[in-house]
Amino acid sequence: MASEFDLIRTHFADLGPPRGDVVLGVGDDCALLAVPSGQRLAVSIDTLVSGTHFLPDVDPEALGYKSLAVGLSDLAALGADPAWATLALTLPADLAPGSAPWVAAFARGFGALAQTHGVRLVGGDTTCGLLSVTVQVHGFVPDGLEVRRSGARPGDLICVSGTLGDAGLALRELLADRAPEGFLRSRLDRPVPRVALGLALRGLATAMIDVSDGLAADLGHILEASGVGAELDLGSLPLSAPVARAVVEDGDWTLPLASGDDYELCFCLPAERAAALPGLAERSGCPLTVIGKIRSGQGLICLGPDGRAVKLARTGFDHFGTTDV
Amino acid sequence: MASEFDLIRTHFADLGPPRGDVVLGVGDDCALLAVPSGQRLAVSIDTLVSGTHFLPDVDPEALGYKSLAVGLSDLAALGADPAWATLALTLPADLAPGSAPWVAAFARGFGALAQTHGVRLVGGDTTCGLLSVTVQVHGFVPDGLEVRRSGARPGDLICVSGTLGDAGLALRELLADRAPEGFLRSRLDRPVPRVALGLALRGLATAMIDVSDGLAADLGHILEASGVGAELDLGSLPLSAPVARAVVEDGDWTLPLASGDDYELCFCLPAERAAALPGLAERSGCPLTVIGKIRSGQGLICLGPDGRAVKLARTGFDHFGTTDV
Repeated sequence: MASEFDLIRTHFADLGPPRGDVVLGVGDDCALLAVPSGQRLAVSIDTLVSGTHFLPDVDPEALGYKSLAVGLSDLAALGADPAWATLALTLPADLAPGSAPWVAAFARGFGALAQTHGVRLVGGDTTCGLLSVTVQVHGFVPDGLEVRRSGARPGDLICVSGTLGDAGLALRELLADRAPEGFLRSRLDRPVPRVALGLALRGLATAMIDVSDGLAADLGHILEASGVGAELDLGSLPLSAPVARAVVEDGDWTLPLASGDDYELCFCLPAERAAALPGLAERSGCPLTVIGKIRSGQGLICLGPDGRAVKLARTGFDHFGTTDV
Repeated sequence: MASEFDLIRTHFADLGPPRGDVVLGVGDDCALLAVPSGQRLAVSIDTLVSGTHFLPDVDPEALGYKSLAVGLSDLAALGADPAWATLALTLPADLAPGSAPWVAAFARGFGALAQTHGVRLVGGDTTCGLLSVTVQVHGFVPDGLEVRRSGARPGDLICVSGTLGDAGLALRELLADRAPEGFLRSRLDRPVPRVALGLALRGLATAMIDVSDGLAADLGHILEASGVGAELDLGSLPLSAPVARAVVEDGDWTLPLASGDDYELCFCLPAERAAALPGLAERSGCPLTVIGKIRSGQGLICLGPDGRAVKLARTGFDHFGTTDV
């Protein structure tokens, strides 16, 4: 199969813009990279597996896009500026011989998002097996300006970008053999990593995480890391019209609180900085909503629109699908 | 399955020695790392897939060891000093609920090698699917001291560490339902990455690669990147006794030239530096052998022990198994 090197050279040797900090890119035993002085290197690795994270008949261009987007979302959550990516792609044997169009589409989706964020693909590996994609992203944070999970303090406002539960509703439709409407579908297939927002929140937010496993679970990680509790005002959750309808129909909040794949940022902001929110929303191009506040103690209290505590049908999303080590 | 976070915390939160350059390790959206000033960052990512790179009944401790070893071998091939690793582990659903002993053994193997080389595990991802392991390694090279594939010049000696074909013979035995002898088995399961040798060759070797796809294919990458040809003296190839026997029995050189998983270093050395070889071998703890020389032009000529050109049954190993992008 002499075509593999050609296939890789053709499709992966030149993804994303050239960068002066890539000393040696695709094509040697290692990539060789220059981290600017005064900057820390932020890295995150994520795997998407066929049947677990996407349906086997996935559009390869959407998969290429999303496999980079989930990593960029992790960089955003620390306030890191994206720089480089590596890609480990496992392709089924029966796909390999005729894989050129599939791989070309995958590379197109990956490359378009890489271009948008100035990310260069610097290395990778291609193997044979069940379809899965592992991407490691690399970015920079000026020393001491990262936003960790552990800085939330009682009194901080809890904020979230965009809307919640759209991807979860799209997946529910697909699994029920219904076609989700275009907006929902694009929220599942092409989540927009909130990179500009993450950068804008350096030095402002006290804690941050990206919402990939559902708001309740991910906010839970902030609470645990910070040693605090929180009160969520469910009536304030930013919901698209179809998710708002589904919440009313279901009579529960699982969709916005405990479905995965939102890739929004949840962050904590000292109350005296609340006035910064409209400007932040405008600069970063996404709506921002205050949904609750940090309290001392521990645990997550959810207050319904009537002001009474709501017991969640499912509070966590601790599965083997998407857990970062 | 609330046990997953516990499982990860228990087994992966603390692999390898603590390092002062890890600002933020396992447990946030990203790891945050400090690359020393004057050093370049070398990275390499590799995936091992069940059924392609290891047998499904693999010893998990050996798999943990090997999944890090293949990356360290790539770092060695550039002359990089290992520092950090990330790990993306995909486990079958039926393994997950009872996976604690399996994961503990995997972590033991990974952690022992990490400890040996001062490598800290700084992040990862656990997913559900067909068993596979992706590891990215990160190391340092002082600016300008890396050994690339592209520096070989006519007249350079071609050298190789250790012996060739042992892992290939072990695999052949296993696939024929025979138990390979202990030496061969350990060469397949626990290859020793030649990290000390790679470091010692900074500023000495003109080109280097690790032999993972077979000597002919990997030396071929050096020749192509350097724009040169080479002459190999097959009678000089360093072979263990069982491989030497197999070559005679088979009447061909496929085993040492074109079987995978050797993880030795193949490097080029200006002839006037040949006197350094015994000292290098002693300092790095592995035998070094001169096996040929670089010529102008292109192509690889293999001379048999009788001095006549030998045509290889298989010259390359261009499959979907182990190709770095």
